[in-house]
Amino acid sequence: MTLPFTDLVRSLPESVPFVGPETHERQRGAPFKARIGANESVFGPSPKTVEAMCAAAQDAWKYCDAENYELKQALAKHHGVTAENIIIGEGIDGLLGLTVRLFVDPGDAVITSAGAYPTFNYHVDGHGGVLHKVPYKDDREDPEALLAAANEHRAKLIYISNPDNPMGTAHADAVIQDMMERTPADAVLCLDEAYFEFADPAVSPPLDTSVSNVIRYRTFSKAYGMAGARIGYAIGAPEMIKAFDKVRNHFGVNKIAQAGALAALEDKAFLSEVQSSVRRARERIKEIAAENGLKVIPSETNFVAVDCGRDGDYARKVLSLLVERGIFVRMPGVAPMDRCIRVSAGTDEDLDAFAKELPGALKDAAASD
Amino acid sequence: MTLPFTDLVRSLPESVPFVGPETHERQRGAPFKARIGANESVFGPSPKTVEAMCAAAQDAWKYCDAENYELKQALAKHHGVTAENIIIGEGIDGLLGLTVRLFVDPGDAVITSAGAYPTFNYHVDGHGGVLHKVPYKDDREDPEALLAAANEHRAKLIYISNPDNPMGTAHADAVIQDMMERTPADAVLCLDEAYFEFADPAVSPPLDTSVSNVIRYRTFSKAYGMAGARIGYAIGAPEMIKAFDKVRNHFGVNKIAQAGALAALEDKAFLSEVQSSVRRARERIKEIAAENGLKVIPSETNFVAVDCGRDGDYARKVLSLLVERGIFVRMPGVAPMDRCIRVSAGTDEDLDAFAKELPGALKDAAASD
Repeated sequence: MTLPFTDLVRSLPESVPFVGPETHERQRGAPFKARIGANESVFGPSPKTVEAMCAAAQDAWKYCDAENYELKQALAKHHGVTAENIIIGEGIDGLLGLTVRLFVDPGDAVITSAGAYPTFNYHVDGHGGVLHKVPYKDDREDPEALLAAANEHRAKLIYISNPDNPMGTAHADAVIQDMMERTPADAVLCLDEAYFEFADPAVSPPLDTSVSNVIRYRTFSKAYGMAGARIGYAIGAPEMIKAFDKVRNHFGVNKIAQAGALAALEDKAFLSEVQSSVRRARERIKEIAAENGLKVIPSETNFVAVDCGRDGDYARKVLSLLVERGIFVRMPGVAPMDRCIRVSAGTDEDLDAFAKELPGALKDAAASD
Repeated sequence: MTLPFTDLVRSLPESVPFVGPETHERQRGAPFKARIGANESVFGPSPKTVEAMCAAAQDAWKYCDAENYELKQALAKHHGVTAENIIIGEGIDGLLGLTVRLFVDPGDAVITSAGAYPTFNYHVDGHGGVLHKVPYKDDREDPEALLAAANEHRAKLIYISNPDNPMGTAHADAVIQDMMERTPADAVLCLDEAYFEFADPAVSPPLDTSVSNVIRYRTFSKAYGMAGARIGYAIGAPEMIKAFDKVRNHFGVNKIAQAGALAALEDKAFLSEVQSSVRRARERIKEIAAENGLKVIPSETNFVAVDCGRDGDYARKVLSLLVERGIFVRMPGVAPMDRCIRVSAGTDEDLDAFAKELPGALKDAAASD
């Protein structure tokens, strides 16, 4: 019997955007010594967040507040916007999927950068959109090229992350501001700011919720250490935000994450600590790279792209040897960025393990040529 | 500026399937005395589940295992199927949405019962499907009518819940087995078994994962008391289950819920206690109804439809007066079932509060005629 899937579903590959570390561990038959590949925050959720989630676990028999009222109020205050400018969702991944669904019919053009966030592409493919990818320029996403492609293809959506994943680079706020202003009126700019809390200079233009065709994504998964709790949000004009109510799962955000996010937002001291720890880890990764004769791409995120100094095949070999040695890291998928491996900010122990295994991985990769 | 939404999104109403109790509470300016309207399990998650979720909260910085490996293994063992027969999702709501997306193109016919689960309809509308609704028969969904409509309209999907929500009735397993066998080969039967753990007689036919066009939904939201944790699953043939990997958010299930579900599944003693408590609460609701001269619809779920003995307008008045008095209950949306209000199994205190407020609500409703 053949199931009556839609033609679109039939056409989709059985691919996954990412292989999770647990999958690797099952394949390896051993746990990783360092889990520094998924840009998770090894510094964890704050103790106050954990406490709030524990308390909420008792109440897990109740569905969440479908309006996410308290969290929206808190975020509105935090960002100086109103609750009507905020939509809460099951992480940025979930919100990106809904955004694509709101705007993309089969055949519609969508612009992103070759090598940028694969999960966005997964959603575009999943809704039958046609992706047009422009190259990175000097290891950064290229606003000019993205805008030009949007105009050329009459795109519905333009995706950019700032700071960028997987390279960790960022454009100054003025560059992004200019991009927002020049986004075609019939297109929507999807500005993924998952990592903005880690950026040292000004990379995030002021929130201007009078502009309806820009939507900005933020998350509790990164700086707040709540990736597994699945809660993120987007900020935009009321016209944009209201539309999510037409397609979202109204009771889809979990109650434990709602409680944790509220506590996380209040614990500013912990956020500062994480930001310091991440800065320290970035320095340490740079030192480890230097000890091995390698350079890093300066990072505004909680990860560092380490330039292995040769081509993608070589870096893939290094990566695979690191994974074999128990170090979970990932790497960019597209040349020339795939000369790098991407190392997330780790604890001292994580980075000690990385420092210990990197020389051998580099040596074996070179030897296998 | 007008945003470039798809035509389908433009056509969708700005409706929500359900108004949450927190929204009511904000409107009332006071908390409910009894929260017995959303068929949540007031008996909570088991202490072992809470403990597991607390422990997992520490680890919330990690994304979930995207393969849900351990939980799939445990569920496979629990149900005597294989992991390839199971898809884990963000509650049945999330899985219903994905199912619709897998099969329904704009214009495709979908069959359900008038008055059945609104969130399923919300997803069908949201994907442009055309709903054909058949009437309930004697307060039960009507398999014959559903099958006839499926054949007539060449439907892609047929939805039935067994036991049923909102009436709490159920068909015997043989009736459902017959329906599965007679589902047209080019249609998929969506069998929502959210409440099956509460059914006393045999209502759930054996799991037969060799039949590819039946998918059965189960959840941790009801008997396991984890509605707010957002975790449910579906069971089907590998061909069906594998397709979800094309459209789901691979890291979408939250890690805390994964841990809680594993613990919940093992705590069989607690499940038995909940089942007993629910049976007791059903009896109590029947008694309270009788004290007020009302009858109930015999229930196989964790809620009871109380027949207010007159028409929908009267029952809506009773409901609204109960809500005003601090008792959160809901009711069926379609005649003739809307002669009832739907009362979830509560604690003794919940049902005491209901017993206290019902006479006044009935009296005032009658007086306002």
